[in-house]
Amino acid sequence: MFKNLLIIGFGLIGSSIVRGAQQAKLTQKFSVFDTDKSVKKRILSSDLKNVEHFSSLKIAIENADLIIICTPVLEYEKIFKSIDKYGKFGLIVTDVGSTKSNIVDLYNNKFKDKFSFVPSHPIAGTEKSGLENGFAKLFHNRYNIICPTNHKKTKDVLVIKKFWEGLGMQVDFLSAKEHDKILGLTSHLPHLIAYSLVRTAMKKEKSMKSNIIKYSAGGFRDFTRITENNPNMWRDTFIANEKIINELSQLFISEIKKFGLDIKQKKLSKLHSKLDQTRKVRRGIIKAKMAGKFIPND
Amino acid sequence: MFKNLLIIGFGLIGSSIVRGAQQAKLTQKFSVFDTDKSVKKRILSSDLKNVEHFSSLKIAIENADLIIICTPVLEYEKIFKSIDKYGKFGLIVTDVGSTKSNIVDLYNNKFKDKFSFVPSHPIAGTEKSGLENGFAKLFHNRYNIICPTNHKKTKDVLVIKKFWEGLGMQVDFLSAKEHDKILGLTSHLPHLIAYSLVRTAMKKEKSMKSNIIKYSAGGFRDFTRITENNPNMWRDTFIANEKIINELSQLFISEIKKFGLDIKQKKLSKLHSKLDQTRKVRRGIIKAKMAGKFIPND
Repeated sequence: MFKNLLIIGFGLIGSSIVRGAQQAKLTQKFSVFDTDKSVKKRILSSDLKNVEHFSSLKIAIENADLIIICTPVLEYEKIFKSIDKYGKFGLIVTDVGSTKSNIVDLYNNKFKDKFSFVPSHPIAGTEKSGLENGFAKLFHNRYNIICPTNHKKTKDVLVIKKFWEGLGMQVDFLSAKEHDKILGLTSHLPHLIAYSLVRTAMKKEKSMKSNIIKYSAGGFRDFTRITENNPNMWRDTFIANEKIINELSQLFISEIKKFGLDIKQKKLSKLHSKLDQTRKVRRGIIKAKMAGKFIPND
Repeated sequence: MFKNLLIIGFGLIGSSIVRGAQQAKLTQKFSVFDTDKSVKKRILSSDLKNVEHFSSLKIAIENADLIIICTPVLEYEKIFKSIDKYGKFGLIVTDVGSTKSNIVDLYNNKFKDKFSFVPSHPIAGTEKSGLENGFAKLFHNRYNIICPTNHKKTKDVLVIKKFWEGLGMQVDFLSAKEHDKILGLTSHLPHLIAYSLVRTAMKKEKSMKSNIIKYSAGGFRDFTRITENNPNMWRDTFIANEKIINELSQLFISEIKKFGLDIKQKKLSKLHSKLDQTRKVRRGIIKAKMAGKFIPND
């Protein structure tokens, strides 16, 4: 499909793309750029083969036919400027960022018609980070949401769709705004909650902390799993989708306060029906899974 | 160890105790009482053998040497009254409730010296409920916290310790107050948060809801798992540990609000270090696990 794929930001996601694309033979050459100086050495001591590391972003971009940006989302503006300057004719750019409106706005306001950009968000990942933890099957049977910059499925959009499908993904189309609302609720707010819960535990005295860790199997430990991710990535995601996350977190706080009041006032039957209703949402998720509305291994 | 074990409230936990105790030959006879009329029939059509079902709580209690209460915690007072009335001499009572101060207070205020009670909390369970979903290994290598009513390890406390150890558990001793503080943070608050998050999603318009379910893999679905439990059990747990849960939930809300402000004000380095610190707590949990401070399969 492409001669030379360049990954900018070479961590778990980027290295999984390279592994998957090599296995599926989607591109001929693979190159990477990362501001982290240790990446070059770590590639050499990893199981990755035929990956060219560039120390100069300029030269890396000049060689690329397809660029996939895999950095925290607030770094895009700097990268877009370099792509605009050094990118070759016919270059297609896509990304894997968790927020989309801020990126689509940035592109439309400052870089439209300067290069072709197809915003993507593969809904895949593990709690681990780093190029050593990537694997080819990471994207297999997962969703990828493409948010075309002009709401139209141009030729380049369809090429990028094919690329993700080549990695085993199911591609959906949403507007950037819809994407950010949905992911705000299904991913960004849960992460903010998990971080806040861990910080609540951190405020407790030392003697209690060791018991919190010891007895963390009752729910707490599940919540900490998602706090293991790259802090820069989540910092940028929170800032980029601030308005929606803030609005959702206010809604969430009002729900938790209402629960608190029902509990304090011992409203037995109201509490029963509230808890029972939420159980139905869970069952809806399981039912959708059973009915094949989720991708099989999802 | 005992002649006749009676389980009051025969669901996931109760039926797992029976399965485990039969396998380990901890008692000779097994009997159950449940206010749910369907339980008798369901026992017969399950894989459970040699379990006697009583329709009369009075007769069930009269026959028992060991009673394990497995009902929601607000039902204990009624049950304690019957035990006081019908229990035989030498009877030992224990339980599996998720809150302990309210139960210890109830016992000490109204039933002390009337029968022997050893409050226990096996930290084990799955998101499923119902006697059909129980299994003998549920307690294997899990913690059980005993909170003796008079802070002393009497003979009966040691007998109950042995019983849980016979099911494969590691028994710890904590005061009821310590227990409720720790479990408030590691279990009750996470459950309240999960319920509140699902309710936040329920407030969204229908068109968005199907997308929330579809893309729930980004974190949301993990949170919904623990909302699948028995609503009465959680209602009672929340009410019984109201003060501690309320205090913790206020701390948690203030943490989430502080995060929101940092995000709004784009405090890049502060956010980075906050997210990085929480990652260290997660690593502490993993390290404790690695160092064998958790029970192996925990």
